[in-house]
Amino acid sequence: MNRYALQHIPDSAYCFPVSEHEMGLRLRTAKNDLTQVWVIYESKYRFGQVQKKEAMQKTLSGELFDYYTLRLNLQDTRLSYIFYLFDGENYYYFSEDGVTESYDFTHGYYNFFQYPYINRADLSKKVEWLEKAAFYQIFVDRFCIGDQRKDTSYVNLAWGEIPDPKSFAGGDLRGIIQKLDYIKDLGCSALYLTPIFQSVSNHKYDISDYFRIDPQFGTEEDLKDLVDQAHRRGMRVVLDAVFNHCSEDISFFQDVKEKGKASPYYNWFVIDGEYPVKEPRNYEVFADCDYMPKLDTSDSQVQDYLISVAVHYIQEYDIDGWRLDVSDEVSHDFWRRFRKEVKRAKSDAVIIGENWHDASNYLRGDQYDSIMNYAFTKCCLDYFAYDKLSAEQAANRLNELLARNTDTVNDMMLNLLDSHDTDRFLSEVKGNEEKLKAALCLLYLFPGEPCIFYGTEILTPGGYDPDCRRCMDWEKADRGKDSKLFRLLRGLSQLRSRYALTFEGTRITSSADGKILELSRRGEGYEICLYINQSGLEGVSGTVSVAPGTFRLFLNGGEILC
Amino acid sequence: MNRYALQHIPDSAYCFPVSEHEMGLRLRTAKNDLTQVWVIYESKYRFGQVQKKEAMQKTLSGELFDYYTLRLNLQDTRLSYIFYLFDGENYYYFSEDGVTESYDFTHGYYNFFQYPYINRADLSKKVEWLEKAAFYQIFVDRFCIGDQRKDTSYVNLAWGEIPDPKSFAGGDLRGIIQKLDYIKDLGCSALYLTPIFQSVSNHKYDISDYFRIDPQFGTEEDLKDLVDQAHRRGMRVVLDAVFNHCSEDISFFQDVKEKGKASPYYNWFVIDGEYPVKEPRNYEVFADCDYMPKLDTSDSQVQDYLISVAVHYIQEYDIDGWRLDVSDEVSHDFWRRFRKEVKRAKSDAVIIGENWHDASNYLRGDQYDSIMNYAFTKCCLDYFAYDKLSAEQAANRLNELLARNTDTVNDMMLNLLDSHDTDRFLSEVKGNEEKLKAALCLLYLFPGEPCIFYGTEILTPGGYDPDCRRCMDWEKADRGKDSKLFRLLRGLSQLRSRYALTFEGTRITSSADGKILELSRRGEGYEICLYINQSGLEGVSGTVSVAPGTFRLFLNGGEILC
Repeated sequence: MNRYALQHIPDSAYCFPVSEHEMGLRLRTAKNDLTQVWVIYESKYRFGQVQKKEAMQKTLSGELFDYYTLRLNLQDTRLSYIFYLFDGENYYYFSEDGVTESYDFTHGYYNFFQYPYINRADLSKKVEWLEKAAFYQIFVDRFCIGDQRKDTSYVNLAWGEIPDPKSFAGGDLRGIIQKLDYIKDLGCSALYLTPIFQSVSNHKYDISDYFRIDPQFGTEEDLKDLVDQAHRRGMRVVLDAVFNHCSEDISFFQDVKEKGKASPYYNWFVIDGEYPVKEPRNYEVFADCDYMPKLDTSDSQVQDYLISVAVHYIQEYDIDGWRLDVSDEVSHDFWRRFRKEVKRAKSDAVIIGENWHDASNYLRGDQYDSIMNYAFTKCCLDYFAYDKLSAEQAANRLNELLARNTDTVNDMMLNLLDSHDTDRFLSEVKGNEEKLKAALCLLYLFPGEPCIFYGTEILTPGGYDPDCRRCMDWEKADRGKDSKLFRLLRGLSQLRSRYALTFEGTRITSSADGKILELSRRGEGYEICLYINQSGLEGVSGTVSVAPGTFRLFLNGGEILC
Repeated sequence: MNRYALQHIPDSAYCFPVSEHEMGLRLRTAKNDLTQVWVIYESKYRFGQVQKKEAMQKTLSGELFDYYTLRLNLQDTRLSYIFYLFDGENYYYFSEDGVTESYDFTHGYYNFFQYPYINRADLSKKVEWLEKAAFYQIFVDRFCIGDQRKDTSYVNLAWGEIPDPKSFAGGDLRGIIQKLDYIKDLGCSALYLTPIFQSVSNHKYDISDYFRIDPQFGTEEDLKDLVDQAHRRGMRVVLDAVFNHCSEDISFFQDVKEKGKASPYYNWFVIDGEYPVKEPRNYEVFADCDYMPKLDTSDSQVQDYLISVAVHYIQEYDIDGWRLDVSDEVSHDFWRRFRKEVKRAKSDAVIIGENWHDASNYLRGDQYDSIMNYAFTKCCLDYFAYDKLSAEQAANRLNELLARNTDTVNDMMLNLLDSHDTDRFLSEVKGNEEKLKAALCLLYLFPGEPCIFYGTEILTPGGYDPDCRRCMDWEKADRGKDSKLFRLLRGLSQLRSRYALTFEGTRITSSADGKILELSRRGEGYEICLYINQSGLEGVSGTVSVAPGTFRLFLNGGEILC
């Protein structure tokens, strides 16, 4: 047995409550190393005398490691446990003290693993509507001009021209309202809008007034109408919370520039000196942008203010959640307060962090529900676009991503192929529509919920910012409503909303011939199997053959969406 | 290279801020597997273009794993990094995506490790006075009778008789006050008292009024006087917070027994039914004790109430911290609120959880400062008492314990050989005073602070509860003030207070001949080396020979306390 590979960490993605009386357990072992794995468990106060034993199943498998998993229903949730392992020759115990050939249960209270008690307040609750959701991300300035009467003197880009970093094309909230039926028809049931608050930029990630809708985008009434119209269609609206930093134009920073340390807002920023100075810069900022001063989210007044913003848009506009910009650089302490107040205002509001890396410390049920899953993005790029991964390697990587987080979090991850912060996926795969379609199948069927960037459905190309932020081509969109791509996206959404897929019952593997990436999801009344062949040769898995560069999708044994 | 063994988890004991501009990093590798390890790092926003590189040192080593560590001083704390490894033949990169032979820095933002930013609010701050502290734990009923005028009708145990679970011996707060000079003379600078609030039991872990000092133990004035007298002597007082459960006699539970669901306190408990019933029990309790109903610490009113208790004793009595009973079964959410309010009331109040297992999820700077280190206790038992560990195995185990937590937490762990909840260590080692003395040296010099159970200094024996809770033998104590054991404890405390030892510079190893457990601590102006030989034979380490069953201690090359 490979003892180096064994891993179990209580109160993490290896041991987590799924509900008030159900625990999820995982054990990591070396790949193909063990024959059988059991958990031996009981209530903490009985473990020394009696124990129960249940077999675990191998359900996740990466390059180096297998993950055995199990759900335990418990009456008494004061769970104590150790693992019992068989490698085909010998039996071993695995406890907090490591691997041993015998185990002294009477002294177990010193070294068993434990989840001491499921406290309601610590339970990571699933946002139920995410199960069926598909998101549509909109970069507002480039989506649709709806308000024809507004002052358009700021617009400097003819619709359809290639944007530069300073382009303003005129998209607005009324434009989104006009296109709600279009988005719904595409199968998307939730919107994620890039920031809409007052700002001098086209992207509005440098906000100068959090309580004002930018007049370029519309009015308070427009936002109310947008949310209302979306809700009438059964759709949700998630806004972008830029709380790591703001614009230097914000009144608070202006006050500090004027009064220095005497300003009541001095502590809202991180300044090394009496006044903020640009040359050489003596205050902290986002990236290296001196016009975006960093907010000190450790400061309780800053926390109060930003939380009042978050709650305001829920209470006054009934929005359905927040995407959190640069959320990894903001304090855990702030997100904990933020979550409490946001969930108090609307219990099923969703909180989606922007964190491109393993974010498990933000995803324990006390901070975010979910993140933008850029690690999934990277895996899709490496597999579909860069030819860096074989089907087997892609399956391994996807399994490792699922092993990072709890079942509950896996069901809420916002998966994406691209966004306003990346090249467009279609351009990454050099315009290959078949690759895009296969990747979209994977996106829609991977645990969590999909998020497509506006224009994906009409094969909008684009390199890195600003090129990925081109104007939506509405002529093409209106023509494209019966295209294969539209039908695929619609069909995938229908599949999701019909079966409310959950992480349990998901398997990601590769075919024996190494050519096919396979994703299957099984549950009450459904079995969905996706086969993707990115190799240059015909691939076969069981009775299913898949031509090179294509995918096949089966529902309960019958092929669909081909 | 053994890829299965490699481990790094950002924002954990593998990567943690030590101060606002300093990070601690660790990398786990297979034991003796690598020749050199470096970290390659830069600010997140520059990492794609330029990188710095620093070598890491192997400072911890367990049975299977080595730990390479490094402190990084950073101006820009938005830290991105990967590891660079050399196994004597090949070089490897280790990132979030695992081990690779090359690394694409321009795409690093997808898979570097990161600590995104050191936020003040998330920083785990050290309680400075712990660095020099030695704790003395007192089971109040058995320590000393100080108030000769009180109603002693409850006393049913003649002082010095062997106690049973229902014994009352009459110890009280005035008794402790009378013995403060004794405790100080022993070198202890902090008291940890088992509960002192109103309760029908001798241990008082079933509290019926949190706002009342139990009259058996004294009055509010007595507690004020105790804290005041301790502070005058430079000593600290930590009380026991029993917040997981209470007594069925508490007014809140009585109200629920009377009014059932109509009681405003119904939700303070966890009851499955209209009223709490004992047969069959339909409410949750501590262990299986139906007279100790569990408090629902997810409930915000319960949280408010218990926090008001915690703050009251700080504000009104100026106590120096809380030890938290059964703290692992209480919600994280509660402890987060608790910490904020306790630290607001007294910034250097200490918070010490009772958690017998890996408690790293409670020790992230948002909940406890420290725990009672029963895993250390178990290691000492296995090494000194049960003969289960060789010197090498004990060194491995102690290293693994230090690898569980951050440097900051390691410096605050409350290490102990025994307590009111275990057999006395002296009885575990079958009365062998030499073993006790060697173990005390290890206790006092292990990172963190020592806690001795009253009577240890006079070789008080005792099995499991209630036998470990015998009456303090004051005749023996008064006679013993010049004993070797007293002098050893005094000397060890002096060493601690003189050098304020910190975890950095600690090494725990075994001698080449396998006979000696070695602990060394090096820092500004000091080098302390402890050699313990629990083998049956003479052991040699370098120029130091240690007789079987003994220990030797050196300060800056000179032998002390022998």
